[in-house]
Amino acid sequence: MDDSFHVFDTTLRDGAQREGINLSVADKLAIARHLDDFGVGFIEGGWPGANPRDTEFFARARAEIDFRHARLVAFGATRRAGVRAEDDPQVRALLDSGAPVITLVAKAHDRHVELALRTSLDENLAMIRDTVSHLRARGRRVFVDCEHFFDGYRANPGYAKQVVRTAHEAGADVVVLCDTNGGMVPAQVHAVVATVLADTGARLGIHAQDDTGCAVANTLAAVDAGATHVQCTANGYGERVGNANLFPVVAALELKYDRRVLPPGTLTEMTRISHAIAEVVNLTPSTHQPYVGVSAFAHKAGLHASAIKVDPDLYQHIDPERVGNTMRMLVSDMAGRASVELKGKELGIDLGGDRELIGRVVERVKERELAGYTYEAADASFELLLREELQRAEEGRARRYFRLDSWRAIVEVRPDGSHVNEATVKLWAKGERIVATAEGNGPVNALDRALRVGLERIYPQLAGMELVDYKVRILEGRHGTQSTTRVLVSTTDGRDEWSTVGVGDNVIAASWEALDDAYAYGLRRAGVSPQE
Amino acid sequence: MDDSFHVFDTTLRDGAQREGINLSVADKLAIARHLDDFGVGFIEGGWPGANPRDTEFFARARAEIDFRHARLVAFGATRRAGVRAEDDPQVRALLDSGAPVITLVAKAHDRHVELALRTSLDENLAMIRDTVSHLRARGRRVFVDCEHFFDGYRANPGYAKQVVRTAHEAGADVVVLCDTNGGMVPAQVHAVVATVLADTGARLGIHAQDDTGCAVANTLAAVDAGATHVQCTANGYGERVGNANLFPVVAALELKYDRRVLPPGTLTEMTRISHAIAEVVNLTPSTHQPYVGVSAFAHKAGLHASAIKVDPDLYQHIDPERVGNTMRMLVSDMAGRASVELKGKELGIDLGGDRELIGRVVERVKERELAGYTYEAADASFELLLREELQRAEEGRARRYFRLDSWRAIVEVRPDGSHVNEATVKLWAKGERIVATAEGNGPVNALDRALRVGLERIYPQLAGMELVDYKVRILEGRHGTQSTTRVLVSTTDGRDEWSTVGVGDNVIAASWEALDDAYAYGLRRAGVSPQE
Repeated sequence: MDDSFHVFDTTLRDGAQREGINLSVADKLAIARHLDDFGVGFIEGGWPGANPRDTEFFARARAEIDFRHARLVAFGATRRAGVRAEDDPQVRALLDSGAPVITLVAKAHDRHVELALRTSLDENLAMIRDTVSHLRARGRRVFVDCEHFFDGYRANPGYAKQVVRTAHEAGADVVVLCDTNGGMVPAQVHAVVATVLADTGARLGIHAQDDTGCAVANTLAAVDAGATHVQCTANGYGERVGNANLFPVVAALELKYDRRVLPPGTLTEMTRISHAIAEVVNLTPSTHQPYVGVSAFAHKAGLHASAIKVDPDLYQHIDPERVGNTMRMLVSDMAGRASVELKGKELGIDLGGDRELIGRVVERVKERELAGYTYEAADASFELLLREELQRAEEGRARRYFRLDSWRAIVEVRPDGSHVNEATVKLWAKGERIVATAEGNGPVNALDRALRVGLERIYPQLAGMELVDYKVRILEGRHGTQSTTRVLVSTTDGRDEWSTVGVGDNVIAASWEALDDAYAYGLRRAGVSPQE
Repeated sequence: MDDSFHVFDTTLRDGAQREGINLSVADKLAIARHLDDFGVGFIEGGWPGANPRDTEFFARARAEIDFRHARLVAFGATRRAGVRAEDDPQVRALLDSGAPVITLVAKAHDRHVELALRTSLDENLAMIRDTVSHLRARGRRVFVDCEHFFDGYRANPGYAKQVVRTAHEAGADVVVLCDTNGGMVPAQVHAVVATVLADTGARLGIHAQDDTGCAVANTLAAVDAGATHVQCTANGYGERVGNANLFPVVAALELKYDRRVLPPGTLTEMTRISHAIAEVVNLTPSTHQPYVGVSAFAHKAGLHASAIKVDPDLYQHIDPERVGNTMRMLVSDMAGRASVELKGKELGIDLGGDRELIGRVVERVKERELAGYTYEAADASFELLLREELQRAEEGRARRYFRLDSWRAIVEVRPDGSHVNEATVKLWAKGERIVATAEGNGPVNALDRALRVGLERIYPQLAGMELVDYKVRILEGRHGTQSTTRVLVSTTDGRDEWSTVGVGDNVIAASWEALDDAYAYGLRRAGVSPQE
């Protein structure tokens, strides 16, 4: 992308401030890959030096991710008061992160300088000037986030503008006006951005929080007023109410402003990426999120149905396929066929337009999703389901790699405090009866081991597979421990990774199903044919 | 309220279009009471005649509710093509509803007139003119909703404006421009409203849908351009993504525009009313809703806590008490002494500035959060931790309600496919040795039941407590099933709800800890003293 407009994502830094989000380094790497696929220009990864997890993230991101679109950004503060920039270990950690771009947070509100930084207004300006110059001299591109800018501008417009000018003159490429407390409405943002742009000549960015429910609109208002850099988070994650939501901001710029801010062809991935990131942070995707929610293009059938058939564009503001979503008619079952066929094509399985087969798959998916399965996040389970139905159509039955007879898991805490987790599986594979018992550090781990102990002789390929991620969600959350449990498992064979889903009355039963699918899929990938 | 500005609520009509909402007449009456308490000027109750439930609602609302602030509005369509208004039974049902105000929906988009109404553009104008005059002549106040106005204006601005003029000249008090498909962004809304106002001289209203994530801002943009009537729904309920959310719209007008649109003193009821309406429609209140969400004024960062102590207004855009919400300090590993002290105060525990005690609490929180606990989502566990440390300081040791000796859980799937979940607990309470076994639909449920079976004789208060929510998170997600597991449990005693956290090698061990805290906290609330 050319540099004239920046889509800057801060999910990994500011988004992680959302109550309930707690990201591991692996989670952060997974999200960074999704954001790069989506095509944002900048990914703010965290505050290296401030906590070991962020430091590790930068090291691993540089080593493990081959970014196609995005540049990695390290976030940090201006030097401490009374210390030279080169002597400030926090500033050094920013350079050490190896990130080519650095966002410095600077105070732009006079009272915050006095109360939070406990320094003078002049020293604050010097801190900005010195730190920007120091980083620029070492070849880094620098953006400056003016914290509490809009409140600061109201309290002391002269000083707030001086902060912008100082950052700009010291060599910051973009000066970002932050509505840190989120209290602004669009008309206010527009007026302030226009004035600051005219008075300082700096390139301006906008960072909006959603406390008035206007973060997306505030971001657009800043763009209307001349800002050319927008800071957002995936799904609007962020502190308190949240940040400006990346997806509707980008969609508005592309589809309403007719402005190209993404690489060609990635906007259609938006729905998938939004949901995938929700899975990584382990939050249920919002059904009512603009553009990407499952309800976003859902029409209650009735009066409009026949008119929609004539011209769907009369009843939707955009074609949902432009953002990778689909129109749903809430009483019709026509919805699934096309997507099943498309998905099959995506997986390299030609369903040859077999209407009956596709219909059966649609029915099974609907039935299973109603029971709690989610195939969106479990491609491998979906592919198994598809292949099973294909086999049934071709051979009259679906073959498996093994057939479960029974299993048992015991978890015990003994009087001395020691834990015992033991599992026994009884199953059939290649005509053999197998009984195996193993211990693990938890019941699911014990079950996983018992399964491998029992099967590895028959399927040695299992030795190369490993569980790498495991997520549990309790569905219908108002029923306490009697709810349905859904488990998502990621498995790798060292090269690729695949996801499977299981549902059950309890976490162990659900895990069993997901493990069953995980190994079945892995064996199929390894070229083994199902026997049972 | 004077009539110069209308807050018009359509939760009961348009809000009920949200996927998953299904309102009984009793639900509608309950919501109408809440909306009247809040102080909206108009409550659109439904479409009398279109379905029996809405007809019944109007009859019962007139008989049963003594509205203090709101006027009741019936919604309906203009007369059918080729029929006199007085001969149209649908129009008669509007009069029969007894509602003093009627909103008529009219087509404002030429293609919709042709495709959905299947009539001529002129007949559509006549339908509007006749129906408005007919209702006005019978003493009703009339508002006209111009459906698909903004898309219609883009397609054929002349005709769209003719619709506005026709309604205005026939005697409609307000002509409402509807963004029915929700595709607008604020700059577009502002431009269109300003032009239509200048060209027609009609009093204009705005009805925005949230498909671009800008419904609140679009509503405000219309007000900026001269609209004096806003149509909203409680919590933004509505078709697809939803409607403009009543609460942030009203809060912005009152607090950001300094415009009195509510009766004095009702804005502070906003949080309570938002949650109460969510309960009636049986949807979980959004934790991240602007102004009224439980996270809306939650602060996480420890850095800021000391400055918040000095001046909370530096870190929040309004005083949360103005909308009936409260500031919450989230205790996390970023927290320091100041936030622990603030949190103690919030819980009614005076730590009396005891630096040593506070320091110990901070240390324990950090240590436990490093191990995977998260206190920001588990207030009850944090309070127990705080009280334990207080007891240790006062008595040299912390007392508990019961002391675990050992437990065992067995999960089994038998060859016939049947599941068995059984748990045994062995513990001490009030000096008694207790051994209890129970079955459940999962291992955690079995453990919960065994614990209650064993303890209910000694602590009969447990019978009134119930688990209502249960969440599992696997931490350090790249280690497969060998990860640490965190469980969050919500428990209720029928009046209040509290959250506790447990961490363990596996889901059952983690659940045990969360249950232990849940019941200890419940017993303390019930006034029972710990013995062990």
